[in-house]
Amino acid sequence: MNWNMKCLAQASTIALLWTASAASAHEGMWMPDQTAEIGAAMRADGLQIDPAQLSRLDAAPLNAIVSLGGCSASFVSPEGLVATNHHCVVGSLQNISKEGEDHLTNGFLARSLSEELPAARGSRIYVIEDQREVTADMLKGISADLTGFARHEQLDANRKALIAACEGQPNRRCDVRAYYGGASYYLQQKLEIQDVRLVYSPARGIGEFGGEKDNWMWPRHTGDFGFYRAYVAPDGSSRPYAPDNVPYRPKNWLRIAREGLKEGDFVMVAGFPGTTDRFRTAGEVRFNFAKYEPLWQRWLSNYAAQIKQATLGNRTAQIRYASILQGVENYAKKLAGDLAGADAVGLNARKATEETAYRNWVAADPALQARYGAAVLELDARVEESSRASLQGLGAALLGQARILSSARTLYRWAKEHEKPDATRESGFQDRDRSETIDRLTQLEREYLPDIDRKLFEAALEEYHRLDAKDRDTAFETALGQIGLDRLYADTKLADTATRLGWLDKPAAAFEASDDPFIKLAVALYPGEIAAERTNKDLAGRTQAARATYMQGLLAYRKAIGRPVYPDANGSLRLTWGKVARRTQDGQIWTPFTTAEGLLAKHTGKGEFDAPEAAIAAIRAKDYGPYVAPALGTLPVDFLSTVDITSGNSGSATLNGRGELVGLAFDGTLEGVIGDWAFPGDRNRSIHVDSRFMLWTMDKIDGAGRLLKEMGVPPAWAGKRL
Amino acid sequence: MNWNMKCLAQASTIALLWTASAASAHEGMWMPDQTAEIGAAMRADGLQIDPAQLSRLDAAPLNAIVSLGGCSASFVSPEGLVATNHHCVVGSLQNISKEGEDHLTNGFLARSLSEELPAARGSRIYVIEDQREVTADMLKGISADLTGFARHEQLDANRKALIAACEGQPNRRCDVRAYYGGASYYLQQKLEIQDVRLVYSPARGIGEFGGEKDNWMWPRHTGDFGFYRAYVAPDGSSRPYAPDNVPYRPKNWLRIAREGLKEGDFVMVAGFPGTTDRFRTAGEVRFNFAKYEPLWQRWLSNYAAQIKQATLGNRTAQIRYASILQGVENYAKKLAGDLAGADAVGLNARKATEETAYRNWVAADPALQARYGAAVLELDARVEESSRASLQGLGAALLGQARILSSARTLYRWAKEHEKPDATRESGFQDRDRSETIDRLTQLEREYLPDIDRKLFEAALEEYHRLDAKDRDTAFETALGQIGLDRLYADTKLADTATRLGWLDKPAAAFEASDDPFIKLAVALYPGEIAAERTNKDLAGRTQAARATYMQGLLAYRKAIGRPVYPDANGSLRLTWGKVARRTQDGQIWTPFTTAEGLLAKHTGKGEFDAPEAAIAAIRAKDYGPYVAPALGTLPVDFLSTVDITSGNSGSATLNGRGELVGLAFDGTLEGVIGDWAFPGDRNRSIHVDSRFMLWTMDKIDGAGRLLKEMGVPPAWAGKRL
Repeated sequence: MNWNMKCLAQASTIALLWTASAASAHEGMWMPDQTAEIGAAMRADGLQIDPAQLSRLDAAPLNAIVSLGGCSASFVSPEGLVATNHHCVVGSLQNISKEGEDHLTNGFLARSLSEELPAARGSRIYVIEDQREVTADMLKGISADLTGFARHEQLDANRKALIAACEGQPNRRCDVRAYYGGASYYLQQKLEIQDVRLVYSPARGIGEFGGEKDNWMWPRHTGDFGFYRAYVAPDGSSRPYAPDNVPYRPKNWLRIAREGLKEGDFVMVAGFPGTTDRFRTAGEVRFNFAKYEPLWQRWLSNYAAQIKQATLGNRTAQIRYASILQGVENYAKKLAGDLAGADAVGLNARKATEETAYRNWVAADPALQARYGAAVLELDARVEESSRASLQGLGAALLGQARILSSARTLYRWAKEHEKPDATRESGFQDRDRSETIDRLTQLEREYLPDIDRKLFEAALEEYHRLDAKDRDTAFETALGQIGLDRLYADTKLADTATRLGWLDKPAAAFEASDDPFIKLAVALYPGEIAAERTNKDLAGRTQAARATYMQGLLAYRKAIGRPVYPDANGSLRLTWGKVARRTQDGQIWTPFTTAEGLLAKHTGKGEFDAPEAAIAAIRAKDYGPYVAPALGTLPVDFLSTVDITSGNSGSATLNGRGELVGLAFDGTLEGVIGDWAFPGDRNRSIHVDSRFMLWTMDKIDGAGRLLKEMGVPPAWAGKRL
Repeated sequence: MNWNMKCLAQASTIALLWTASAASAHEGMWMPDQTAEIGAAMRADGLQIDPAQLSRLDAAPLNAIVSLGGCSASFVSPEGLVATNHHCVVGSLQNISKEGEDHLTNGFLARSLSEELPAARGSRIYVIEDQREVTADMLKGISADLTGFARHEQLDANRKALIAACEGQPNRRCDVRAYYGGASYYLQQKLEIQDVRLVYSPARGIGEFGGEKDNWMWPRHTGDFGFYRAYVAPDGSSRPYAPDNVPYRPKNWLRIAREGLKEGDFVMVAGFPGTTDRFRTAGEVRFNFAKYEPLWQRWLSNYAAQIKQATLGNRTAQIRYASILQGVENYAKKLAGDLAGADAVGLNARKATEETAYRNWVAADPALQARYGAAVLELDARVEESSRASLQGLGAALLGQARILSSARTLYRWAKEHEKPDATRESGFQDRDRSETIDRLTQLEREYLPDIDRKLFEAALEEYHRLDAKDRDTAFETALGQIGLDRLYADTKLADTATRLGWLDKPAAAFEASDDPFIKLAVALYPGEIAAERTNKDLAGRTQAARATYMQGLLAYRKAIGRPVYPDANGSLRLTWGKVARRTQDGQIWTPFTTAEGLLAKHTGKGEFDAPEAAIAAIRAKDYGPYVAPALGTLPVDFLSTVDITSGNSGSATLNGRGELVGLAFDGTLEGVIGDWAFPGDRNRSIHVDSRFMLWTMDKIDGAGRLLKEMGVPPAWAGKRL
C-alpha cells in the first residue's frame, strides 16, 4: 500500500460515513444540472418522475418555479397565479391598507381579476429562462499574477459586461454569481415581470398565526401562504402596471396534489436559497463563532431593546418601527440559534477534521501539493486579514441605526458614482439600480420618526465610541461634534420624502455645499468609506485566486473520496429533497404534522394567537370537508420534512414524488439554523404549510372558490379526501 | 323540580366534569389532616401504605420532611443528612468558595463529618412538630362590626401573641397562617435547627446543567440536588454553630427506593408550596392579568436589560449582580408564562363561570343569601379598591432598584419600630427578626457596586416619573432634587458594611440628624410609607371579614356539589400526588424521562451546558452500574409527573407508593405555571431529578460512598438494577 492508496482508504472511510448519514439526512442544495448525480438517490427515496426532467429549466416542474427576489414562489395556474408565503406578500398587504381597510389584519381577496391590486412598490416576479456557466468569460484578462485591487476590478468589469449584454434583451434581469468560491461562475437570465398584483391573502390570524413567538419553532400552526398574479401587456411582453395589462400565461404551472402527504413520504423543494457558508475554512468558522456572530448578536439584541424602549407607550412609533424590530428580533434569534447550534454540533472540531483530511490529502501527493499547496496557505493568511476587516465593517454598520444618515449616504454616493460612466459605477449605483434606489429612499417615510431615530442613533454612537480608535472615523466624529445632535435633527430637511428624492441626481458639489447636517455627515463619511472599500476590494482580489484554487482542490478531493458536492447557496435556483419526518430527541418527540385542533388549542383570541372567528367556528364544528388527512383523521396545518433549505427558500413549492404541489416551505427550526454553516444531520427540519390547510382556508373560510377552480381543484373533490 | 333542585343538578354537572378531569390531572395541595378525604383516590392511583399514616406529623414519612425556609427538604439518614435541591444549597457553595477554591463551579464533598462546613449565614432547618388550628384564638376580640384598621390590628396582635407564646418554648419557630382567605387559621410549630452544614453538592455542570436557558423547560437534564446536615448540641438541643455540635438524629428518615420509577407509576410529594391564588375572585384575576402582571413583567424585563447593560464588559459587576439578575430573569420568565397561560386556559372565562355558579347558588336560597350575599358584594368593592392600591405599591417597589436605599429604609424603620414595645412592632422588625435583618443588611456587600446601583436607580427613576403624580412621593422627590444623584452616591457611607450595620439600633433622631444622603432619602420616604401602610391595613381590615365569609360560603358550595377542597398554598406543609406521565400536544410529545445520552447531546463544554469531564466520560462508556432504568435501558436523569406543586416545593422529596424516596421535585414547566391561579389540568407537569441519577453521580462521579452507605444504599446494589 503506497501513501496515496492509504490516503484513499482513509478517504473512503470518511465517504462511507457520509453516505450512511446522508441516507436519512438528505443534505444538499443541488443545481438543476446536477440531477444525473442525485437522480438514483431521489428515486430510491420516492421520486416517481424521471429525474432528468428535473434538470430542464424549460419544462415542468422547474419552469413553474419563480423568484420574487428574496422569496421563492411558483405558478399554480395557466393564468399566471403565483403561490408564495404570506410573509412574502405582507408588504403588499401593508401597501393596499388604508384607514378603515386593514388588510394587514383581515387579509385580502380579489373576487375577480379586476379587483386584483398592484403589489408593493418594487415587487417583481422573475421567471428563470437560463442558468449557464460563464467561468471562461469571467476569467477573461485574469492572469495568474493579476492580484489585489486590479484583479477585483477586472472581475467586476467582466461581470458587469456579462450582465449588460444579457440585459440588452428587453425585460430581462440577469445576474452572475460565483460558485464554489469562484471556482466557477454561472449567469442566470430571468424574465422580469413588472406588473405584479395581489390576488389573495388569508387574515393575519392565519398567515402569521403564532407570530414572532412561534418563529423558528415547532410545533407550528401558521398558514403562511398568499397569492400574486403576473401581468403583462396584451402582446405578452413584460411592462410596468397598466390597466389593460393581462394575466401572464406561463408555459407550465404546478398541479395541486389530490392525495396529501403522510409521514415518511418523499418531498422535494425547488427555490432560491440565499446564502450558506458550508465551504468556509475552519479558520473562518472559528472567527465567525468566536467573535463576529457573538458581537453581532449582542448588538442586534441591544438594538431590539433600544427600539422597544424608544417606542414605549407610543403606538404610532411602534407601528412605524414594527417591521425593523421584527427583522432585528428575527435575526437576533437566528444568530442565537447559530451560536447554540455551533456548540451543539461541535462545529469547530468537525470543520477542523474535514479540513485536515483534505489538507493531508493534498500534502501526501507532490503533484497535488504543487497545484493546491500554496493556495491553502495563502487562503489562511487572507482569512486572517479579512476577519479583522469584517469586524471593522460591523462597527461601521452601527451607524445604520440612524436611518436618515443611511439615506444621506446613499444620495451622496449616487452623486459621486454618477460622475463616472455607467459601466464603471459601483454595483447598486448603476442606471439599472435606479428604480430600486428610489423605492428604498421612499420607504424611509414609513419607517422613520425623528425622535426615535435620534434615540437609536445615540445608542449606536455609545457603542461606536467603545470601538478602538482605528476602527472609528475621525472626520465623521469631528463633523458630528461640530453639528451636535440637536441641530442634526432640528435642521435636516431629509425627513421630507420629496426633498429627499429631490437630492437624487444632484451633483456632488451641491452636497458638498449643502448646509443640511445629515448631508454634511454623509460627505464627511465618504472618504473613509471609499478608502475602506478600496482596501476590501484589494483584499478580495488577493483572496479570490487563492479561494478558487483551494476550492478546485477541495472539489478534486471530494471526487476522489466519492462524496457528491453541491455549491453553497447563492440565491440561484436549487433543488433539494427529503422526507416528511418526525424528530426524536431525548425527552421529546416532534411529530411531523400539526392539526387544526392544535391551532384551536393555541388560539387565545389575542396577540399572535388570534385566528379568525370563522376558522375557529369551522374547527370547532370539524367542518373539514375533503381536506382531512386520513392517517391523522383531521385537518393537517403544517408539517416537518428533512429537506435542506435556508432563507430565500421562503415560499418555495413543496412537491411530492409526482411533482405535484403538496405545500409551501416557510421556515426552519432554531435547532437546525446552524445548517447555514454545516448540514446538521438529523437536527435539520424544515417547516411547510400543508396544501390541504391552504385549500381548506380558501374553500371554507375565505370563499376563494374562483381561485380553487382556476388551480384545477374540481368541485367534485368536495366529499372526497385529498 | 324546585329552584334548589335545579341548581343542585347544575352544580352536579360541574362536579362531574371536575371529577372526570381530576382523575388524570391530580389537582390539589392537601393538608396532612385531609388524608381521610383523599386516601381512597390515592390508593386507587397506587399508594401502597395506609393513607392514615400520611396524616401523622410524628411518623414517617411526614416527620422526615423539613423546611429550609423557602425550600423544602427531607431527612435521608439517621444522622440528620438532609437532601434538597442544588439551587437550595447554592448560597452555601458561594459562601465556602474563595480564591482558588471555586465550589460554585466544582461542587463540594466533605470526606468526613469534620470536613462538613457551615452553610450560608442564616441557613436553618425547620422540623415540623405541630400544625394546629387556631381560628378561635385568632378571632378573639374580633366582633362582626370591628372593621378597617382596628380589625387588622386586632388580628395582628392575636397572631403575634400566638407566635410569642409558641416561641416561648426554646428553639422553636412558629407561624400563624390564614387558610381559605381567613376562614380558618393554623399555627405551625417548628424545631429550628441553627447549625446547618454543607455536606455535598455535585458540580455546577450537574446541579445547574442547562442553567437559565433550560429553566422552566422540558426536556431537562439538571441534577438539581445537594445535601446538608443538621447539627445540634451534644445534649440534642438546637444551638448555633459550635465545633463540638453533633449530627441531629431525626426520629425518622426516608429510605431510598430500590426499585426506580417507570412511566405511569404513582408518586407523591410532601413539601412547603409558597403561594397560590386559586381562590381569587374573577375580578382579582381580571385585574391581575390585565394590569398588574403585564406591568410587573415589563418592569422586570426592563430591569434585567438594565442590569445587563450596566454590567456590560465588567466581570466583577456581572458576578456581583448575577444572583439578582438570575432572580429577575427567572421571575420575568415565570410571569410571561403566567400571562401566556392565562390566555391559553381561558382563565377569565373559567373563573367567571365558576364564580357565577357559586353566586347563583347563593342567590337561589334566601338563607344562603342572608348569610353570604352581602359578603359577595362587599368583597367585589374591596377588590376594586385594593387593585388600585396594589398598582401604587408596585410603583413604590421600583425604588428598590436602588439597593442601598432599601438598606437605609430598613435601618430607619428599625429605629422607628424600636420606639415601641416589641409586641406591637411591625412584623419583620421584632426582636425575633433581628438575626435575619442583620443577614440581609450584610448580604448587600456581595450584591452592590455604587456605579451599577446608580445606573439602575436612574432607570428606575425614569419609570417612576412616568407614574401619575398621586402615585409618587413628593417629599422623596423634593429631597432627591436637593441632593442630586452625584452627591447621593459620592457622600453616602452606607456602602461600607460596618458603617451600615453600625446604624442598627441607633435612635431615630440620629437618622433625622444625619447628613448621609441615602438616610435623608429614607427619612423623607418614611411618612409616605407609613401613610400608605396604614391605608392598606385599613383596607385589609375591611376586606378580611368579607373574604372570610365569602370563602365560608364557597366551602359550603363546594361541599354541596361534592367537590373536595384544599386551601391555597401558603408556605405550610402539604401533600400532593400524581403519576409519572408524558404530555402529548399537537405536533409534540414530551416523553416522561430524560437520559444520560440526552445530557451528553446537550453538553457543549461551555456556558450552561458544561458537564464535568468525569460524567461525560462515564456516559460515553455507559458506565451506569446498577442505576439503569430497565424500561429505558439506560440511566434516567429527570422525569415528569402530574403532581401539583409550586415555588417553595423546591427540594421536596418525591416518594413512591411505599413512601420511599425516588427523586426530588425541582421545577415546573412554563406551560403549567398558570397553575398558581387555576390548576391547568393536563397542561401541568412537574419536573423531578431521578434518585438513580443522584446515586449514579454520587457513586460513579463524585465518590460519595460515605453518604451512600449512610443512606443505606448497600454496596451489594452494585451489579443489581435499582
